[in-house]
Amino acid sequence: MEDHQKASELATADRAPGARVPVVGMVGAGQLARMTCQAAISLGIGFRVLAGAADESAAQVCAGTQLGDYRSLDDLLAFGGGCDVVTFDHEHVPQAHLIALERAGLKVRPGPGALRYAQDKRAMRERIRGLGIACPRSVTVAGLDDVLDFADRSGWPVVLKAVTGGYDGKGVWVCGNPDEAAVVVAHGLDLLAEEYVAFARELAVLVALSPSGQAAVYPVVQTIQRDGICREVLAPAPGLAEDTALAAQQLGLAIAAGIGVTGMLAVELFETPGRLLVNELAMRPHNSGHWTIEGARTSQFEQHLRAVLDLPLGAPTTAAPHVVMANVLGGDDPDPHGRLVHVMAADPGVRVHLYGKGVRPGRKIGHVTALGDDVEDLRDRARRAASYLRHGTEQGQQDR
Amino acid sequence: MEDHQKASELATADRAPGARVPVVGMVGAGQLARMTCQAAISLGIGFRVLAGAADESAAQVCAGTQLGDYRSLDDLLAFGGGCDVVTFDHEHVPQAHLIALERAGLKVRPGPGALRYAQDKRAMRERIRGLGIACPRSVTVAGLDDVLDFADRSGWPVVLKAVTGGYDGKGVWVCGNPDEAAVVVAHGLDLLAEEYVAFARELAVLVALSPSGQAAVYPVVQTIQRDGICREVLAPAPGLAEDTALAAQQLGLAIAAGIGVTGMLAVELFETPGRLLVNELAMRPHNSGHWTIEGARTSQFEQHLRAVLDLPLGAPTTAAPHVVMANVLGGDDPDPHGRLVHVMAADPGVRVHLYGKGVRPGRKIGHVTALGDDVEDLRDRARRAASYLRHGTEQGQQDR
Repeated sequence: MEDHQKASELATADRAPGARVPVVGMVGAGQLARMTCQAAISLGIGFRVLAGAADESAAQVCAGTQLGDYRSLDDLLAFGGGCDVVTFDHEHVPQAHLIALERAGLKVRPGPGALRYAQDKRAMRERIRGLGIACPRSVTVAGLDDVLDFADRSGWPVVLKAVTGGYDGKGVWVCGNPDEAAVVVAHGLDLLAEEYVAFARELAVLVALSPSGQAAVYPVVQTIQRDGICREVLAPAPGLAEDTALAAQQLGLAIAAGIGVTGMLAVELFETPGRLLVNELAMRPHNSGHWTIEGARTSQFEQHLRAVLDLPLGAPTTAAPHVVMANVLGGDDPDPHGRLVHVMAADPGVRVHLYGKGVRPGRKIGHVTALGDDVEDLRDRARRAASYLRHGTEQGQQDR
Repeated sequence: MEDHQKASELATADRAPGARVPVVGMVGAGQLARMTCQAAISLGIGFRVLAGAADESAAQVCAGTQLGDYRSLDDLLAFGGGCDVVTFDHEHVPQAHLIALERAGLKVRPGPGALRYAQDKRAMRERIRGLGIACPRSVTVAGLDDVLDFADRSGWPVVLKAVTGGYDGKGVWVCGNPDEAAVVVAHGLDLLAEEYVAFARELAVLVALSPSGQAAVYPVVQTIQRDGICREVLAPAPGLAEDTALAAQQLGLAIAAGIGVTGMLAVELFETPGRLLVNELAMRPHNSGHWTIEGARTSQFEQHLRAVLDLPLGAPTTAAPHVVMANVLGGDDPDPHGRLVHVMAADPGVRVHLYGKGVRPGRKIGHVTALGDDVEDLRDRARRAASYLRHGTEQGQQDR
């Protein structure tokens, strides 16, 4: 037996003599890159990830894994040099590096001009308002007085958001009183103060936009978070008024065109009586679209690849009347595989996706998807499976 | 940037500290291994392929690729030593090696006792008849006289089949007269002579069986071949009588149990007025099941992994009323990617799978799948897409 082959040699092998296969490089090797890797296999294209470590989620499974640091311009240039298109599974590559990659002649999709609005919440708010689209009211915080002034007008609680980054892994704090706000302000971050929106529910709309200007929009979904973590996605959003769904889709298309994104754009929305407010943007495949793997004719991962390669977009139509996705969070036990057998035995119809990530309590380590006719039944099934993978029991009322 | 990482290091990285992730090794790196690799990513298990060359279909995309020769016991032992279960994307590993792998303590699934019936057509015929299941009449051929005697009773044409292997890449010859039979016999192969069955159509039934004895059976499909190559699969078989479908499924389950397979079993059938005859067996994911990727709740590739790992089997139910798969064969142009854009633009709903294989005329290089309500419409769409990927035109009446 010959020695094991290098991943890079495999990825660059001339796979079909005479053929020119495009290569997409994704910076970042989390679960989004892992699931994009699966989609790339079907399309027969080349796919590489730039991973920080060999045990990252996508690095475990992608033959075209290269190790490097997304904060290093040298690493980014070396990675991008072997790719036809560079794209991202996160928004943490510095603007200056994105611009330098473009100047080096690389196709960066989405480009720095669009990614800025996923990196800088102040710029995002201003751009969205400039498009005539509603957001929560917000002001820039220079000090605690600005928060108190804002609260005098908008009331408590006040939402403080880091314009970029954050601390302790968080970038959003809901502050119920001046003391709580003071703790956040004391960290010295660049902050926005935003009104706390008493929303009826949270929605999300996913749009794909290609360089040629073709757009595709998925059905509007409901997202259910707990402790700031997405727990469930219901596709389509149950009982959503048709005109509201249309308005959300039009708003998603307008933002995609307005910021000039290439690839997937996720727009997180608050639904309130009578209006929709834009909460957050992401310019990549997004947790609110994992249901599309089985639940739509074209998954968001394949759609992202099609868009960044400027291939015609696939149909975003649903493959079942209702689709429910539940995230699997890490529990106390490091081994979800020991419980997989029970979940599979209990429900042969639920689709399980595990990301190969080390288990930490509360960390997203996988998701499950159920498809069918009865949304409440599907929610029960998806939550049971996700809870069991987390806890080894179906107890977990806190999961519901 | 660190140097590229070796595939083997990635595959063996301790992906989740504290977790013990099972590793499946598949001998062979064709498109079946490639699509099984995609399914393994969702399950979060380890997956490796033993490839003859780095540019083989699965080797291009699988991080756990090892190079070696399936005819070498040393290579097989070295490969299997790093795996919890060894399985196969083809039936060409010699029986003696399969037995030696089991003696070395490896879990070989399916085992040599079952795989024998995919390797030796005489043994297969005897075993199927021993189970009380009908096959075409056949006799062993020691010389041309045996063929002539058989033809006196069964008439011409006579089908000659190599018991194992074949020549010129073929193992089946339909002989219209003694002269044609003489040419085949002259090669000195171990042959069976079989009656030529004037079937109404060809069907296939896919069964999964686990070591624990759990079985799952997919809806019976119709397969359409031309020049001995599968061109289309219609799932479920249109207009199939319910009792015939049930009989085919029961026959599949009986064969799976009778030969003691583990994993996927494909049974190819001739449908004739009033009875079903078993044509061929395959003990692996099979071309007649590619439709299950999008068209069933559990794909045959995931089902095979579940079965060989003795995990509970997934639901084999369909995800749409009708599913049509058409194979993409190689044409004269080595670059199907140049035509992908047109296929995607023409039909955003058709699902394309390209295998990364070098193009040779007539070779299977991919497949397309269409799902919906109207089987004739789906056939048109799937054939158009497959024909365009092959020829760059929709001409190809010969493709229909």
